Amino acid sequence: MVTRPLRFAEIVAVGSELLTPFRSDTNSLYLTARLNELGLDVRGKSVVPDDRATVAAAVRAALARADVVVTTGGLGPTDDDVTREAVADVAGVAFEEAPALLAAIEARFARRGIRMPSINARQAQVPQGAVALDNPNGTAPGLWLRIGEQILIALPGPPRELKPMLEVSVLPRLRDLCAGAVLRRRTVKTTGRSESHVEEVAQPIYTTWLQSDPVISTTILAAPGQVELHLSAQGADAAGLDRALDAAVQKLEAALAPAVFSVDGRTLEEVVGTLLLERGFTLSAAESCTAGLFLGALTHVSGSSAWITGGVVAYANHVKVQALDVPAALIAAHGAVSEPVAQAMAAGVRRRLKTDLGVGITGIAGPTGGAEAKPVGTVVLAVSSPGDRNVVQTIRLAGDRATVRRMAVQAALDLIRRVLTDADYN
Amino acid sequence: MVTRPLRFAEIVAVGSELLTPFRSDTNSLYLTARLNELGLDVRGKSVVPDDRATVAAAVRAALARADVVVTTGGLGPTDDDVTREAVADVAGVAFEEAPALLAAIEARFARRGIRMPSINARQAQVPQGAVALDNPNGTAPGLWLRIGEQILIALPGPPRELKPMLEVSVLPRLRDLCAGAVLRRRTVKTTGRSESHVEEVAQPIYTTWLQSDPVISTTILAAPGQVELHLSAQGADAAGLDRALDAAVQKLEAALAPAVFSVDGRTLEEVVGTLLLERGFTLSAAESCTAGLFLGALTHVSGSSAWITGGVVAYANHVKVQALDVPAALIAAHGAVSEPVAQAMAAGVRRRLKTDLGVGITGIAGPTGGAEAKPVGTVVLAVSSPGDRNVVQTIRLAGDRATVRRMAVQAALDLIRRVLTDADYN
Repeated sequence: MVTRPLRFAEIVAVGSELLTPFRSDTNSLYLTARLNELGLDVRGKSVVPDDRATVAAAVRAALARADVVVTTGGLGPTDDDVTREAVADVAGVAFEEAPALLAAIEARFARRGIRMPSINARQAQVPQGAVALDNPNGTAPGLWLRIGEQILIALPGPPRELKPMLEVSVLPRLRDLCAGAVLRRRTVKTTGRSESHVEEVAQPIYTTWLQSDPVISTTILAAPGQVELHLSAQGADAAGLDRALDAAVQKLEAALAPAVFSVDGRTLEEVVGTLLLERGFTLSAAESCTAGLFLGALTHVSGSSAWITGGVVAYANHVKVQALDVPAALIAAHGAVSEPVAQAMAAGVRRRLKTDLGVGITGIAGPTGGAEAKPVGTVVLAVSSPGDRNVVQTIRLAGDRATVRRMAVQAALDLIRRVLTDADYN
Repeated sequence: MVTRPLRFAEIVAVGSELLTPFRSDTNSLYLTARLNELGLDVRGKSVVPDDRATVAAAVRAALARADVVVTTGGLGPTDDDVTREAVADVAGVAFEEAPALLAAIEARFARRGIRMPSINARQAQVPQGAVALDNPNGTAPGLWLRIGEQILIALPGPPRELKPMLEVSVLPRLRDLCAGAVLRRRTVKTTGRSESHVEEVAQPIYTTWLQSDPVISTTILAAPGQVELHLSAQGADAAGLDRALDAAVQKLEAALAPAVFSVDGRTLEEVVGTLLLERGFTLSAAESCTAGLFLGALTHVSGSSAWITGGVVAYANHVKVQALDVPAALIAAHGAVSEPVAQAMAAGVRRRLKTDLGVGITGIAGPTGGAEAKPVGTVVLAVSSPGDRNVVQTIRLAGDRATVRRMAVQAALDLIRRVLTDADYN
């Protein structure tokens, strides 16, 4: 039985590929965030190769310092997956077969019409005394093992397997053992402003919170087309922390509006999807430089077929003319990357696909194709909407090809958001 | 004196900020690449907080396993910078003042018209026997220390300080001690097979290489729709390693064909782009469940406008009918996710956009929309090509919405690859 609250955690990432120049352990950032929320302080991380004795030694060393040790990776079916064995070595126990687990793995293969390869049978072997953790997204079960007063947790390496297992099977078990202080967080997401601009506005505000009670810590995180403010506060009074954080979020929202698009964790595509659903609008898009990534992003949201009709990827100019009715003379006069052409693309796709809103995106993603008047990173966005109310915008984006395309998608999503939240449309 | 060549390295990153959810150690990727080039195999990495005893313990543990240990960070002038002290503790030596170093740090401040803060004097203290490494971009000198036959190197954390110090002061010293051993790598990328299936075929082959001369190590890495085999070999004879690795790659290619799409690092979209360019073919796509992500992926490749014409995102059925000429009766008879509809989409987009090849993708990405006959994850892919040679394929994919969509894109890319490498088309 655990008699004192758990306080310190360590993470051991298993995988020879994480010791090459090509891969780094990113799971530990997510894990750290979630462990922190339970008041667990991560005091060390290590990366070890797929070698049974080395993994066992790293886990033993971590258990000498921490109350909770989480391993990631090495639970697969192949010979180089040795975490299961290393965990058993550390605990000093033998394996036992878990028939229910074997049946679940076989069923997983059967659903895909495949016979289970014999090597997968290993994954149904569980160290004695360990709890096998369900893996909804893969064949590798996780492990939860008490060793005296300490907890050893083995999670699979792929993030899409690790995350749901952590949320569903690990955090609820840990929460019961982490009595006391809680850590609360909020995230304010902005788009359309640079990190330094957000910092300039936000810094005078959040600096004062370092002397407040509770203390609120703020971190700024930037990604292409998006700057996030992460707020956190720690203490015994969860309700008090929530009140203080909500007030802090409101202050930042007021100062940074209209760049703030979400304070509840939603992505920009989710926010736009909700707005379209609320207004009962359908949307189509004509994409050139983003070539499908804009509609691809909007349709990440499940249920998006209610508001997304479809679109045209008009990479070649003749597609703009033939599939979108953009006059060839307009392209000849202004160039494919121009406001008249973007507007004609938006109007054309809206008319052809019979939607309430039409979006046009054309630009120069690079690295070639730029000119003095229209350098690489020039992107033109247009929205065509009911009553022929139209918006068009030319922006200049910095970065490599992938970054320019990603930022163009964000900017187009944000333009729709602004159109839909404009007083005229409500 | 070092009497045997150095082979194994470990990296210890020092910094409490690297144990938060917001920062990760990226220096180690760069360091690993440069150490690998000297034939040093990185066998472990750890991240430790700014605590003298913890840093010293981590360095001692690393020295128990490796010939070379590199620390990063913790060399600054403030109280929480403790790497210098930890290095001295590990070596069991006292500090001595380095007057030349002190003069250099004072001169650095003087150049900026600032008197050196007294705390910076600490940075001129060097553990006895250590060589201070010049820092052209900062005040913190690095340290190079021999402990018996082993080498302990302490580098500053900021990349713009670490990198020049590594290049100018560390690598030349290490090169002399590495006696010409080099590490060579190859990557074999496959698609369309599960990790376990690739393992089942590859394992009997690569196991024999563990006893060969040179020894070739193999690691398997899986991502949605892609399984990679990473091969590496170490030794003095670079040309011999290259020959052995090339032969190994050929064996895997022969055993795993046609699942192998790249042995030169290229992505699947790059491989498909090159094939289209070589054949002089243009391509268009009609996408339903992937909604633009297939064309978005293909156009990540710069210059892709030479082979990608565009496409139609036919999310709603009426777009399939109106923009792609799919007969409404066909959808009514077979459903939108069916082989006849996928074929009609591929033929329709090819005819409408006047391309050599047309691709049709329709499926159920989930989480809703599945039925017993067509569960979530069912995806139908079709290719329409010159001479009305057509291919259609129904696949079942496992995973969440994002994974199914990503795997559907990979499967569609792979189908084009197979069509283009088929003897009939060459």
